[in-house]
Amino acid sequence: MKQTIKVGYIGCGRRGRSILKECLAKMRDVEVKYICDASQQRMERATAHLLAGGAARPQFVTDYHEILRDPEIDAVFVMTGWSGRPQIAMEVMRAGKYVAIEVGCADTLEECFALVDTYEETGTPLMMLENCCYGRRELAALNIIKKGLFGEVVHASGGYLHYLNEGELFRDIDTAEIPHYRIGHYRDRNRESYPTHELGPLAKALDINRGNRMVRLSSFASKSCGLKQYAADHLGADSVWAKTEYKQGDIVNTIITCADGATILLTLDTTLPRPYYSRGFSIRGTKGMCYEDGNVFYFAGMPETRQNKGNEGDMMEQYEHPLQKEYRAATQEGGAHADGIDWLVCRAFVESVKAGTLPPIDVYDAAAWMAVGPLSEQSIAQNGAPVDFPDFTRGKWQNREPAAENKYALHTVIEDDSMPIFPKI
Amino acid sequence: MKQTIKVGYIGCGRRGRSILKECLAKMRDVEVKYICDASQQRMERATAHLLAGGAARPQFVTDYHEILRDPEIDAVFVMTGWSGRPQIAMEVMRAGKYVAIEVGCADTLEECFALVDTYEETGTPLMMLENCCYGRRELAALNIIKKGLFGEVVHASGGYLHYLNEGELFRDIDTAEIPHYRIGHYRDRNRESYPTHELGPLAKALDINRGNRMVRLSSFASKSCGLKQYAADHLGADSVWAKTEYKQGDIVNTIITCADGATILLTLDTTLPRPYYSRGFSIRGTKGMCYEDGNVFYFAGMPETRQNKGNEGDMMEQYEHPLQKEYRAATQEGGAHADGIDWLVCRAFVESVKAGTLPPIDVYDAAAWMAVGPLSEQSIAQNGAPVDFPDFTRGKWQNREPAAENKYALHTVIEDDSMPIFPKI
Repeated sequence: MKQTIKVGYIGCGRRGRSILKECLAKMRDVEVKYICDASQQRMERATAHLLAGGAARPQFVTDYHEILRDPEIDAVFVMTGWSGRPQIAMEVMRAGKYVAIEVGCADTLEECFALVDTYEETGTPLMMLENCCYGRRELAALNIIKKGLFGEVVHASGGYLHYLNEGELFRDIDTAEIPHYRIGHYRDRNRESYPTHELGPLAKALDINRGNRMVRLSSFASKSCGLKQYAADHLGADSVWAKTEYKQGDIVNTIITCADGATILLTLDTTLPRPYYSRGFSIRGTKGMCYEDGNVFYFAGMPETRQNKGNEGDMMEQYEHPLQKEYRAATQEGGAHADGIDWLVCRAFVESVKAGTLPPIDVYDAAAWMAVGPLSEQSIAQNGAPVDFPDFTRGKWQNREPAAENKYALHTVIEDDSMPIFPKI
Repeated sequence: MKQTIKVGYIGCGRRGRSILKECLAKMRDVEVKYICDASQQRMERATAHLLAGGAARPQFVTDYHEILRDPEIDAVFVMTGWSGRPQIAMEVMRAGKYVAIEVGCADTLEECFALVDTYEETGTPLMMLENCCYGRRELAALNIIKKGLFGEVVHASGGYLHYLNEGELFRDIDTAEIPHYRIGHYRDRNRESYPTHELGPLAKALDINRGNRMVRLSSFASKSCGLKQYAADHLGADSVWAKTEYKQGDIVNTIITCADGATILLTLDTTLPRPYYSRGFSIRGTKGMCYEDGNVFYFAGMPETRQNKGNEGDMMEQYEHPLQKEYRAATQEGGAHADGIDWLVCRAFVESVKAGTLPPIDVYDAAAWMAVGPLSEQSIAQNGAPVDFPDFTRGKWQNREPAAENKYALHTVIEDDSMPIFPKI
């Protein structure tokens, strides 16, 4: 067990800087030895966060290979844009260093297989930093499911329900050095391009890759109207953005069927006006359910929860996961998120690196979740024809070893005597 | 224009009696001359409602053909169970009498075509009594859409989200003369068997069969666990109901693609515990949206609605449809539904019969909505393969005459100066 680790950090865009500022800069057992970006200015901004946290100045590199050559480095964070990330991650694995990748899709299925192959060849662990797996709601539900309180899980749904036109895609578009990379994806492709925030927690709830697997996917895109309409209304009907043809449908619904017969519904919803962010998280079991948009947790055996649309806050407190309790007790600082999801997911990675164990969200999870992008694109292009989901574990899902038994693992029953007793049926 | 009409009424089950009691018994321009049912007892119970309303005693018949032979009869209500209803409806049309059918699916696509063919041969109008088209929320949204306030409609969703195990399917199962007919359907079939409560209003919102049409459908069923689990827990693990194998998946999601590129998501959700009824009604446009489960109406041009999760009540009042206003002013009695949906849909039919005009929900609508049952069954049986949606209008959807211009029509812009002005963009 290492007391401290040295890391390299690739990608200092908005998201990359946020993780540095809110998480790594505050961790006394993590030394950021290198940061890497094409932009000197972005590296300076990132460094300011580290220095403010009392850390030493990291070395700046524009070629990440320099990081990989340093034998002192234990782990590397890959926080670049969607494309190219798998390629860098594979080089990191080949250099024998733990690798953490930011969430997102693969461009191609081949990339997903290559990640798995590289892991199996090198034995170097990869973790996807899917912060939403550590969300307060998601962890409470996982807790409830692992205790059997929802019964058998039959269906689960979620979405990335986040209006991006004004706050992200076209923000400062007239002055931006380069347009947001998502615009290019939306112009050129029609797919479920951002599934992991919802799919990650649902996959954990359904034991995907650990006793269950996703076997089939179908995906459907509505017409594409929201980007053009927004651009015409706000950037001018003659602007290049209003005249661009976008392939990306505004609402993409994807249905995944699992080996055990459970179904998963995912929704991408980012380019039509909506008033609030949601991950639309829902779990349906034979004995209970939860549903984010209804603010409800419900147990069939507890009739007193029946009319409690709006009881979610109470239930999340009653069934709060120990990690969330610990986080809340330790700090009120959650970075961008009040429930500390960035902090927790980074801790999960750091603890795995220190202990030399497998991370709780591993290369098989990452490959499967990232594969939704190219698979959905195939299905949409064929009017929603079902597409087989590759088994990236090559059969091992049926009897896989659990993740390392540290407290950040997402696969084990949480023992906590303070939890309420099993509801009656 | 007739001042009064004489009707025959076939089917005096729970739903049939409710419509008699809450609607027809109170309409002074409708004389129920016949009622028909296999059970004398049910006819007596139905009659009690009519007599209580001051009406004359109807004639009892067990063979509905007697009704069809009476030249005095203007219209016939067909309120029997799901199966066999189209057959009776066709006989009514051939007898030259307006026919109203209760909501539900066709068993087969052939039945849907036969309904359309019979209408085209006879010229006798049919109306499906889809009460939810007249719901307060649905009518307010229709009002907003027709005024253009949501912009272009891109996606719509809804569901029949109603836990039926305890309240309907297995209620009094030990003492019931015959089990609820839905149990047999759930044992023998796996399909979206009850789409019209949500699809009806969504189809009206999207101008289906009047400028737009449904071109393709895919349907996905989760495993089937809820019925067996409920029966084992409540009726005994050794009961016949716990030992029955049910084909019906607990959650069925169906995606329909329209000619204009809009998509519709339907969900059947009746056999897993859930704490409240919802139709999950949602409309997504380029300039606004509404969402039942979020209790929200949102207009992009009105930033003050942005954080108003929970503003639905206010917005439904502001944009209330004239029919709902009129209903609320006239009565506080809404039958089973506070917003008078049964009353309004029955009035829509009665007014069409009196005026000799086309009803607002006609045979093409009914055929298309009822076709979801057999089409979804086909798709589910093929792992969600897309199935072409027949064009029951045979091309006429591109340029169909609007429904008759009575105030119950669902296809025209509602002129009402008391409505709020168009939100700014």
